[in-house]
Amino acid sequence: MSYFRENIEKVEGYMPGFQPAQKEVIKLNTNENPYPPSPLVLRVLARINTEQLRRYPDPIGSKFRLAAAEINGLEPEFIMCCNGGDDLLRMAFQAFCDENRPVAYPAPTYSLYPVLANVQNCPVLEIPFDEEFNLPAKLAGTNAALTIVCNPNAPTGSFISVDEIASLADEISGVLLIDEAYVDFAQQNCTRLVKDFDNVIILRSMSKGYSLAGMRFGYAIAQPEMIAGLMKVKDSYNVDAVAIEAATAAIKDQKYFKENVDKVKAERARLTEQLRKTGFNVPDSFSNFVLAQCENGGAAKIHEQLTKRNIYVRYFAYPKLDDKLRITVGTPEQDDILLAALKDILATEPSQL
Amino acid sequence: MSYFRENIEKVEGYMPGFQPAQKEVIKLNTNENPYPPSPLVLRVLARINTEQLRRYPDPIGSKFRLAAAEINGLEPEFIMCCNGGDDLLRMAFQAFCDENRPVAYPAPTYSLYPVLANVQNCPVLEIPFDEEFNLPAKLAGTNAALTIVCNPNAPTGSFISVDEIASLADEISGVLLIDEAYVDFAQQNCTRLVKDFDNVIILRSMSKGYSLAGMRFGYAIAQPEMIAGLMKVKDSYNVDAVAIEAATAAIKDQKYFKENVDKVKAERARLTEQLRKTGFNVPDSFSNFVLAQCENGGAAKIHEQLTKRNIYVRYFAYPKLDDKLRITVGTPEQDDILLAALKDILATEPSQL
Repeated sequence: MSYFRENIEKVEGYMPGFQPAQKEVIKLNTNENPYPPSPLVLRVLARINTEQLRRYPDPIGSKFRLAAAEINGLEPEFIMCCNGGDDLLRMAFQAFCDENRPVAYPAPTYSLYPVLANVQNCPVLEIPFDEEFNLPAKLAGTNAALTIVCNPNAPTGSFISVDEIASLADEISGVLLIDEAYVDFAQQNCTRLVKDFDNVIILRSMSKGYSLAGMRFGYAIAQPEMIAGLMKVKDSYNVDAVAIEAATAAIKDQKYFKENVDKVKAERARLTEQLRKTGFNVPDSFSNFVLAQCENGGAAKIHEQLTKRNIYVRYFAYPKLDDKLRITVGTPEQDDILLAALKDILATEPSQL
Repeated sequence: MSYFRENIEKVEGYMPGFQPAQKEVIKLNTNENPYPPSPLVLRVLARINTEQLRRYPDPIGSKFRLAAAEINGLEPEFIMCCNGGDDLLRMAFQAFCDENRPVAYPAPTYSLYPVLANVQNCPVLEIPFDEEFNLPAKLAGTNAALTIVCNPNAPTGSFISVDEIASLADEISGVLLIDEAYVDFAQQNCTRLVKDFDNVIILRSMSKGYSLAGMRFGYAIAQPEMIAGLMKVKDSYNVDAVAIEAATAAIKDQKYFKENVDKVKAERARLTEQLRKTGFNVPDSFSNFVLAQCENGGAAKIHEQLTKRNIYVRYFAYPKLDDKLRITVGTPEQDDILLAALKDILATEPSQL
């Protein structure tokens, strides 16, 4: 006999990418930014005082809210702080989905969505992407309570235009959550849609563009009424006092942020080109990772060989993904080590592939 | 028309205690520890490096897990880190409760429980305490999927013996969550019960005894199979890298912790005695706050008068509580200011009460 609900018994927990304890590895498996966060972050951490630790934090993180609102050209009431973007995803499932209120999303995408759906025990409508990862037309007709579009999409790196997403928001009757965790590396974002659509929620993360994956900080953008509803399912104090300070310092340093992102984008172009030369099929990426297709289908084995060399990339044993490797854009030095290893593996051990 | 589930529409969000922005106030309303955390916490914060910020944190906070396991005399598999105790409460509702699986608890108690029940849309069985806040016999017979006992109880400060709670764990068929957020200020705790009962989950917080309310850190103690089940509903990275370091430093400094708790307990005895002398009915407290009953029923007005003087205590407009004030144990200096204000209010403005 189990104490747990039946749906929870059936849940296979989300499997985060491997986090090696040793430091001397090439770690390109969980889409961390290869560059450190703004130096202002360490400065605020060094100034944390015992009063900030002893007292409860501001429940709504007003300081960050103000800064994020200004940067996005909105009022603070459009912003809600989250303990990482995943915290917002969990809230959205709790707020909108249940046994009779399905979630819909194009697939393949972020593998946390079906885990959260199973926890919430709601039906899942997965609409397959075509080979170019265009927005599936069927997504507008599902009648789901919650539709999620990850844009740029993970783990494909593909991007759907803001106009197409605006049409989707207009056509559906439920909520559209646009997961923009990777949008800092794209050319456009959907911020303007929250002005026109009361059913749009945008998810942002400080983990990628701002190099704060260790800090767990993300935020929602939506109309104030939507934010107020989501606040009801938010943990009372979901973000801590230190994280509020760190995230605020990071988002205020837009100069550093833009330089950091530009470096990653330049290296993404170089890595893409080099991987193509090495024989991989690599679509253009709008994110901080690339999806490299191994034409002979040896992705699992190449992944294994790389791991043996302490080079970590991500392999997903899922349909449409099991012939591909998802590779985070590293520093040029890290990527050169990866590229050399790939050439070596492909050249010297073809029988193993 | 609303985008939200009906039960969410009806939820009245949890109302955290007021957090005044100004610093020159006497703040005895949200049960923070009046003393700072261990000096080792600031030392580890000053040593945080950019790699810890840039990379995802350890998903299970192994470092804290090990330290907490050792201090509780258990294996690390008995421990799960949480983003504050509230994070564990939310997980428990998601794991065990739904429309057909009720929650039961004695009342009055922590006012977050009914909020989480409404979010999860599960039936609530509130079993009233008697006047001495003894464990209600009926609690064993509810057949609830989840039974919660807050011990010491908030906001009453009362304590139920470990033997009585063991009997309850034995009698019920569902899960027993013992919310020990305040147990650091009591003489006993329920740690030993997790060895005998596979249905017991203990909640611990670093907010009160360890003075880390700003850091959001708590943990669960339960048998490894129970912990593994709860992990499925945990956010992948629910605690951040900085919080793991801070909480680990704090829990390892047991000498500082015990001295801190002893100071609070000594002051609790003095505050209780002084409030009784001032004319309040104050039961013995096993927590870091006291519940002071105003015999003439003027609790709301005294609360208002104190607030005007920038002295914050907590008032709950709920049955059995609306004639009482919950007062956090402060420093002797803070408590003396409160006591003087109370004497002043009671002496000079009787007509207003």
